[in-house]
Amino acid sequence: MDKFSYDVRVRYAETDRMGVSYYANYLVWFEVARTEYFRALGVNYTEFEKRGIFLPVLSVQCSYFAPTTYDDLLTITTCVNSLKRTSLSFQYRVTRKADGVVVVEGSTVHAFTDSSFKPIRIPDEVLNVVKVALL
Amino acid sequence: MDKFSYDVRVRYAETDRMGVSYYANYLVWFEVARTEYFRALGVNYTEFEKRGIFLPVLSVQCSYFAPTTYDDLLTITTCVNSLKRTSLSFQYRVTRKADGVVVVEGSTVHAFTDSSFKPIRIPDEVLNVVKVALL
Amino acid sequence: MDKFSYDVRVRYAETDRMGVSYYANYLVWFEVARTEYFRALGVNYTEFEKRGIFLPVLSVQCSYFAPTTYDDLLTITTCVNSLKRTSLSFQYRVTRKADGVVVVEGSTVHAFTDSSFKPIRIPDEVLNVVKVALL
Amino acid sequence: MDKFSYDVRVRYAETDRMGVSYYANYLVWFEVARTEYFRALGVNYTEFEKRGIFLPVLSVQCSYFAPTTYDDLLTITTCVNSLKRTSLSFQYRVTRKADGVVVVEGSTVHAFTDSSFKPIRIPDEVLNVVKVALL
Repeated sequence: MDKFSYDVRVRYAETDRMGVSYYANYLVWFEVARTEYFRALGVNYTEFEKRGIFLPVLSVQCSYFAPTTYDDLLTITTCVNSLKRTSLSFQYRVTRKADGVVVVEGSTVHAFTDSSFKPIRIPDEVLNVVKVALL
Repeated sequence: MDKFSYDVRVRYAETDRMGVSYYANYLVWFEVARTEYFRALGVNYTEFEKRGIFLPVLSVQCSYFAPTTYDDLLTITTCVNSLKRTSLSFQYRVTRKADGVVVVEGSTVHAFTDSSFKPIRIPDEVLNVVKVALL
Repeated sequence: MDKFSYDVRVRYAETDRMGVSYYANYLVWFEVARTEYFRALGVNYTEFEKRGIFLPVLSVQCSYFAPTTYDDLLTITTCVNSLKRTSLSFQYRVTRKADGVVVVEGSTVHAFTDSSFKPIRIPDEVLNVVKVALL
Repeated sequence: MDKFSYDVRVRYAETDRMGVSYYANYLVWFEVARTEYFRALGVNYTEFEKRGIFLPVLSVQCSYFAPTTYDDLLTITTCVNSLKRTSLSFQYRVTRKADGVVVVEGSTVHAFTDSSFKPIRIPDEVLNVVKVALL
């Protein structure tokens, strides 16, 4: 598996009074896509945390091309586009399912760390299953 | 001190596409008022957590009388209206500062617990400073 | 259809530093369940809004029996337990899917209103399909 | 005025189970800083919206250098670092007030639009008061 897609439906809580999805919520949906990406690879992120391994975000970039709103079904497509000794990057493309329009694109960079946020080597079970790709 | 008031300004993120503050956000503002209530009493909630003492919510009730929206300045007035061996209750009244209209009233019940959510006796420094009152 | 169930998975964003789901998020999940309840009945809430019909919350009550956390799969079971001329009430029961434990119960009361929040009669297509029940 | 600073205190709701502020919340604090920046310039963003003028986000970039947590007092320093015919950019620096550590830096690009998200020229009252600067 290189690319992975997951659908989320926009909640009323996630809209703002401009009538559209509030911009910070796309970062939440990115997080949902990362969780489900790892699950699809057979890697459960909660297991990492039980072993004291965390994956905090170092940076995020996000471009907004078109608005979405309440009840829209969105497809979040993601892949790992860079894998280093202690960090990795995800790309994201958000598509409005009803019409196929790409509404948002983004990326995040993460470090693997211990519980005190000290970088550690990427765990083998991640290295073994993640396939680097580009959206 | 029996009653305590704290102002919050409605953020864009906290509105929804009905044009008003989303209903769950009042519970966040209740939490802000509780934090500042304890601070005003000289009790810092972060100190409790360092000692393994938590104050999870057992129940919440909230009534909505009028909408608020982006940039509204709201006054959250709160007091402890019940104090028991292992639990206490807060009341809240939310007033729109511009016109004095009461927009929301609510209450929460909390237990003092250890980090595994087992009830414990209310710490003395809370008992010593909290004064039971009614809004 | 009287009772309706819908699953949500707890997002990382929805947890707090106590390690559990933040209490206000259950109100968001109640909203998700209402949306899906209406959809299951063949009524699309976005269609109401296009006609200038809204369903703001008048009050909410919520009791928390056990914590949930990141990646937990939760089942929100809901039903309409009261139907009046201009208002209706929902009940909710939240169950942790892994072990069947009831973690939260709650209820909301809503008014049907126009876009200026003036109460209106419940639309016929709602009256025709909603069946009053108790959880 | 070129640079502007505004303080926010991290709410419990804004932390996650890693024990730190959830990454998307910095975008909410950026929004708070923009609102207060305009207010300090004598420009009330709600007035724009009454005239059908909106300022949606086209892109955001954010780098995370150190974590923050519940009850931390954060200073958001912002300035407009680019001003074009229909768009403008903000820079942000987030400092932990207790120790002066820069925890986050970011930027957003915005377009002035009408209510259907069609770009419009920047309103004169903005052009007249905004001073381009760099953090």
